[in-house]
Amino acid sequence: MIRAIAFDADDTLWHTETLFQETQVRLAEILSHYAPADEVQRRLHATEERNVKVFGFGVKGFTLSMVETAIEISGGRISAADIHSVVGMGRGMLEAPMELLDHVPQVLAHLQQRYPLYLVTKGDLLDQRNKIETSGLADHFAGIEIVAHKDPTAYREVFDRHDVDPASVVMVGNSIPSDVLPILEVGGWAVHIPYVVTASFERHDRDPAHARFSRLESIGELPALVDRLSPYPG
Amino acid sequence: MIRAIAFDADDTLWHTETLFQETQVRLAEILSHYAPADEVQRRLHATEERNVKVFGFGVKGFTLSMVETAIEISGGRISAADIHSVVGMGRGMLEAPMELLDHVPQVLAHLQQRYPLYLVTKGDLLDQRNKIETSGLADHFAGIEIVAHKDPTAYREVFDRHDVDPASVVMVGNSIPSDVLPILEVGGWAVHIPYVVTASFERHDRDPAHARFSRLESIGELPALVDRLSPYPG
Repeated sequence: MIRAIAFDADDTLWHTETLFQETQVRLAEILSHYAPADEVQRRLHATEERNVKVFGFGVKGFTLSMVETAIEISGGRISAADIHSVVGMGRGMLEAPMELLDHVPQVLAHLQQRYPLYLVTKGDLLDQRNKIETSGLADHFAGIEIVAHKDPTAYREVFDRHDVDPASVVMVGNSIPSDVLPILEVGGWAVHIPYVVTASFERHDRDPAHARFSRLESIGELPALVDRLSPYPG
Repeated sequence: MIRAIAFDADDTLWHTETLFQETQVRLAEILSHYAPADEVQRRLHATEERNVKVFGFGVKGFTLSMVETAIEISGGRISAADIHSVVGMGRGMLEAPMELLDHVPQVLAHLQQRYPLYLVTKGDLLDQRNKIETSGLADHFAGIEIVAHKDPTAYREVFDRHDVDPASVVMVGNSIPSDVLPILEVGGWAVHIPYVVTASFERHDRDPAHARFSRLESIGELPALVDRLSPYPG
């Protein structure tokens, strides 16, 4: 029985990954004297993986990883002015205007009439707070939770806090490891809506074979899916 | 009537500011070719103030501000190797071993028998989570809240979430603007325990003249103060 619907934020409600990808293209341009673009991308990804335990997910950690990658890939020859540009690119990401995905406000307005909605996101606390405020979506949610990791323990804690059984939650998001697998593990439903671009650390080889797993192409299809999963009584 | 006691974390339960100060001394050494230490400190502080709205509080934003300051103060002449060291200093802060302030575990163990205790802290989400885990103090708290800003609205939201009237809360912390003024504004009690070093952005000229404001020299004095504020009935 569905009692609540929860949403991821970045690349589920608003665009983020395109910004990361654009920034990586600009980084590759700055470093084009030292290495081809695919090597820059590969090294940046390796640096991010090494740093994620300390820096976490989010733009600030990404920016520090870009700075490290730029220094390492140039063998220390990159200029301070170029590094300044890289830090400026990070600030630019944090200040970028917000772009909602199609259908988002309408779908949230519709679903909140039937279920309490929750926002469950990870990343930089201040950045996420700023985005939630800018999005104008905050009033659709009965609860907004910014977590450090999205694992089964985090989902249990979040929904315990709101007195919601996690097994009664539909979680909607673009990431198999963050939004799908952990909610299935705590007994809930998962709806995967892949984003047009997939972040390297979000890639996942195989779909979960699971009765409570669904995939949609767009959040616009969510109300119909929810109706199928949990038809109105009577 | 006191119903709950809430604590700040950095420099109230464990040492943090000494680490920031040591790192600033090392930054001044790296930049000693370009400017005297006091100018480095002044410029770093100005950069932090300019960046806090975008980068927030915490080590990652501080590290990005150090990188910018190093580039600016050297007129772009600083080497990539030196910038690499600066980023490494940031990582070192995030990985530094934790040191609790004196009396902290005993005081929390004592007070939690009488009141639910809450932890209310700001900063990087992952960094704060890691510190709370490392501290071994998590089990003393009925609730742990990491917020982006410590203002009256944030305190109201935090305590609403736990069904605690903010006017019944004693907030204990080392910062007048973050831990004292906002809790007084929402009707609660404030206990200021100055840290041995005060961060530049935490400085505040005047003490609040307020019946619900107290100052202690050490958290070891807190149980006696709580007894005076709210004696056992009977």
